Order: sequence, then C-alpha cells, then structure tokens
Amino acid sequence: MNHDWLFDACASIDPHHEAQALARQSQLTKPPGSLGLLEAAAVRLAALQRNPRPALDRVWISVFAADHGVAAEGVSAFPQAVTGEMVRNFAGGGAAISVLARALGATLEVVNLGTVNDPGEIPSVRRAIIAPATANICERAAMSEVQLQQALAAGAASVAAACTADAQLFIGGEMGIANTTAATALACALLDQPAIALAGAGTGLDASGIGHKAAVIERALARHAAVATPLEQLRCLGGFEIAALTGAFIAAAQAELPVLVDGFITTAAALAAVRINPGVRDWLLFAHRSHEQGHASLLRALQAEPLLDLGLRLGEASGAAAAVPLLRVACALHNEMATFAQAGVSTA
Amino acid sequence: MNHDWLFDACASIDPHHEAQALARQSQLTKPPGSLGLLEAAAVRLAALQRNPRPALDRVWISVFAADHGVAAEGVSAFPQAVTGEMVRNFAGGGAAISVLARALGATLEVVNLGTVNDPGEIPSVRRAIIAPATANICERAAMSEVQLQQALAAGAASVAAACTADAQLFIGGEMGIANTTAATALACALLDQPAIALAGAGTGLDASGIGHKAAVIERALARHAAVATPLEQLRCLGGFEIAALTGAFIAAAQAELPVLVDGFITTAAALAAVRINPGVRDWLLFAHRSHEQGHASLLRALQAEPLLDLGLRLGEASGAAAAVPLLRVACALHNEMATFAQAGVSTA
Repeated sequence: MNHDWLFDACASIDPHHEAQALARQSQLTKPPGSLGLLEAAAVRLAALQRNPRPALDRVWISVFAADHGVAAEGVSAFPQAVTGEMVRNFAGGGAAISVLARALGATLEVVNLGTVNDPGEIPSVRRAIIAPATANICERAAMSEVQLQQALAAGAASVAAACTADAQLFIGGEMGIANTTAATALACALLDQPAIALAGAGTGLDASGIGHKAAVIERALARHAAVATPLEQLRCLGGFEIAALTGAFIAAAQAELPVLVDGFITTAAALAAVRINPGVRDWLLFAHRSHEQGHASLLRALQAEPLLDLGLRLGEASGAAAAVPLLRVACALHNEMATFAQAGVSTA
Repeated sequence: MNHDWLFDACASIDPHHEAQALARQSQLTKPPGSLGLLEAAAVRLAALQRNPRPALDRVWISVFAADHGVAAEGVSAFPQAVTGEMVRNFAGGGAAISVLARALGATLEVVNLGTVNDPGEIPSVRRAIIAPATANICERAAMSEVQLQQALAAGAASVAAACTADAQLFIGGEMGIANTTAATALACALLDQPAIALAGAGTGLDASGIGHKAAVIERALARHAAVATPLEQLRCLGGFEIAALTGAFIAAAQAELPVLVDGFITTAAALAAVRINPGVRDWLLFAHRSHEQGHASLLRALQAEPLLDLGLRLGEASGAAAAVPLLRVACALHNEMATFAQAGVSTA
C-alpha cells in the first residue's frame, strides 16, 4: 500500500511571527512573563497561524470511534457494546464532548470507523467503516496494511474537511472500549517501556484489573517484538481510531492547521505521528495532563507542557475541549490588552 | 471601632444539595470520576448555590487598588505611580482584567482605596479613599483602627453590590505597588514562617532584590512581633486592598455568595478571613496556583486544591477570571450531559 503522503514535509514555522508576538507581549501593561503559560500559548498560536492577532473562533473537533479485538481479553470495566452506544450519544448531544462542543460553538464531527455493536446510519455521523473491530493484538496484528491505510486516510479526510471549513484549530478525540490497552501497548513499543510502567486504570479498573491488563499488554508486546518502525508498531498494536488520529495529526501539520492534543490515547497517536514524521511536533499544543498512568511518560517524550492538570480520564477530546476557553483567553489578552505607551503606564 | 459584623455566622451548606449533585454525576454517561476536578467543582457549586443545576452567568469582579508605605523601602520592580496609572487602565479597558471581564461578560468594579498618584474621579471607578497609602510597616502599623474598619467595610460594600446584582460568583482582585511585600509579611505572621520562606519575585525582582525584600519583611515582622490576633496582624502588616478583600470574603460567606480566590495576595487575604471567621472557608473556591513563592504554603494552610497551574503572577483577579470558563464548562457538563438511562448506554 501507498503511505507516501505520511512522509511529505510538514509546514514550516516563520520565526518572524513568533518574534513579533514576543515583542508585543513585552509591551503589554503587565510585568513581563506574568501571564505565564497564557503568554506562551498566545505567542505559539500567533506563530502557527502566521497572524499577529491569533484567533480561535472556528474550532473543529473530530471524534473517531472504533472497537478493539483485545476487548476479548477482559481489559475494560465496560462492555464492548458501549462503543456503538456512545456513537449514538455523541450524535444525540448527551455525551461530554457533545456538551462541550456546543458550549464552545465548535464543529463536532463523529466518525464511526467500525463498532461491533453497529449503531447504523445516524445523521451527523460519518460512516467510514473499516471492520467491526481490530484483531486481538495478543494474537495477530491489529490491522492489515489496507486497514491501516484506511484508518490513516480517514483522519486525513477529517483534516481536509476542517480546512474546507477554515478551522483555526483541530482537535481529535477517540472512543473505543479497550482502547487504553491498545494505546498503552503502542506507547510501550514507541517508548521501549514495560507494560507495568505505563498500564493504568482506563475507565476504572482496580489494582488487580490493571495487573491483568499489563499482562495482556506484555503478551501483545511479545507477539510483536520484531516490529521496528513506528508505522508497523501502529499497525500491529494500535486501533482504527488511534491510526486515524495519527493520520489526522500528520495531515494537519502538512496543512498548517494547529492541533490541540487531548489525553493519553491521543498523545500516543501524536507520538506515533511525530516518530513517523518529526515535523508534526511543531504543530502540536497539549491540552492537559491525564490521570491515566502512562500519560506523563508520553508527554515527557514529546517535551510537552500541557495547560491543564485536572485529573481527567474520559477521552472523547473532552480535555482538549475544556482547554479551548483558556486558549481563547490567551488570545484575547494578547490581542486586546493596552501597551504601556497606549495606557500611559510607567515601566519598571 | 466596631468589628462585630466580622464574627457573625457564615451561611451553612445544605448537605442534601451536595448529595443530590454527587448522585447525578454518577449517572452521567462517563466512567465515574473521569471528569476529575470538573466534577468536584460542579458538585461544590451545586451545594453552594443550593441549585441542582449550578450556573455562572452572572460573575462579579471587584478589583481593589491601594498604595503601600513600604514601597519606600525599594521592594518593587515598578515605581509607585503605577498603582494610580493602572486604576485608569482598568477603567479604560486595557488591563488584563478589563479584557478578561469583557470576554467573560462579567461585571468589573474598580475600587480606589487610596493611591499616591491619584487618578482623580474616573467614571466607573468607585472612590473609597482611605488615605494616599498605608504607613510603612517597618516603622508602624499599616493602618489605624479606623482605616482597617474602612477597608473591611469597602470590601463588604462590594459584596452588597454584587448581591444586589444577583451575582452567582464573587471574585476579588488587587493592585498596589509593593503589595506582595505586605501580603508576604501578613502570610508570615499568619503561618508563623520566616520571610525567607515565603518572599518571592513579585512583579519581577532578581535574587538580590528578593533577599532585600525578605530583610524588609523581617524588620516589619520584628516591629510587630507582639501582635497576636489575625485582625491585628491584618491591621499592622496588610494593606487597604488586602483588608478590603478580607472583608469581602467574610461578607460573601455570610451572604451565601461563593467566592473564587485568585493568587498569592488574595489567598493571604482569604487566610486572614478564615482565621477571623472559620466559616468563610466553605465558601471559597481556588482558581490557580501562582508562580509567587509563598502561594503554595498559603494553599496548604487552607487545604485548597486550585484548578489551574499556569505560572501566573499578575494579580488583578486575572487568574480567577481565567478559571471562570472552566467552572462554566463544569456546570454545562453537569447540567446537560445525558444519563446512562436517557442515552441507552450500558454501565460497567
């Protein structure tokens, strides 16, 4: 199959816009640096958007749903039927991300990549069915070559739609029972860490459940120990929604569209994207530090400093959506504050 | 003078509303606890507002400005004229809190309690002048008994105005060159800590500047070592705006109005309020962990878990204002998410 597009160059960042934004921050009526990460976020957005007055009026959120063969190993607190049920809930407006998208005035796209419990055609859900679920990663590769390409392309298609809508920020989210198991296996492979170091509670496992999950992940890692490239690690250990996120992040970086990364699973997908195409990193902002055990290691590997640390562990892009108002506040401060000269305020 | 009102009982919290909100959270379509601090915040607001659907449509922000005699000791990176200049900037819409209040649709009240560089009458600034500045705390008490009472009453008056406007949340902010010195001295007295443990960079001192500031604070602490009650500590070491915040927080707790506490200086005022009247604590939510050195100790003393940790150190209520969108998000999720039963989603 042809994965050539994945390696196409990402957009470069013009240092002039960053320097210009930093200069403006130093003239605003506040002690230099006193707005901390809000200053850094505004400067970063100004550079990425090549705009001295960065804006986040048009935010695009794509949530990718898919099921996982490894659910058969009993690694989740919830039954597999929930994936399909939640697709309906996303579309119906009752899920966390539905509420958040509405509150933000953001566009919410729901993409069904394949669920065992198929909710069927639902208005406002894009069907891009690859299979009812991935294969069980303890037994074989999660995806075939063709399936991997379909998943990556589904993510890129969402970015294309976001670009058509003139989005200023792309957020990717995921839903899939057992997908912290797949994401943890992928993270272990990418970071060369044992399962026990990264395995966490997911939707709510107790200590014995986490121990079982780590053992399942170790079996999967042993099964695919010979796999060496990040793309093959993604194919063998990932999931349709995880690969879609990876494809989306690469496509966004190629299309000059800034990305706000959500929690553990999306960060695993982001690390895979950066390992496949290092230029992606420049285009990633990080929303929050998840409660999920392995997230800190992924963030460290990406040298990421997230905005929020609220103990979130829901997924669905909910943590990224929760951080959007902060980024908007950062933009408003950057764009609207008076300078010392304008306000007639003395400097230090 | 008569401080009797300070000791009047604070409003009590009905445990029924908290239990009801917790029960609702457990039925929403998400793994229990997966929205972390956002769940806790919504439950807390439901209890404080006695409302199963908490709301933050009407947010009131009062910023108290005042000058400090201790500025004569050379403890700030900025000249004293800035306090009065910033009062004009608050009113003119160019300060950080002006931008934030506009973005939030919040009411912004600016209260001038006395500045050496007097900006005079400004529409939309409430003049409640006590004196051009406090006395130098290295030499004598910051305030007389009468001045302390005036400052506490000015804060209570803002809360009364907020209640008249039917506000659902009260935020207090401050501006005053050298006020981290006064707030640190007060914090040292309240926490029985040496100056060096709590003194920080304020608006931007270097290491030698912080050392000088700590020495100044030690002189003030030695001068007032005999002072024992929190009210006297506030009078001798605080400032007009710090005492106004203390008075506001006590009045808010008595009036059933939830408070969102900003950074280092407001938290020092909040600790004074809780030491004067312990019932205040129930009504305080904490917005952020400031970059200022002493804030962590104050938060620990109040057993506070703030929402944000963004390296902010501006004051003006800016950190609290930045946290309001998160609280609104918490309310929207609590109020609008579907339950498992409503959405037909299976439970664990």
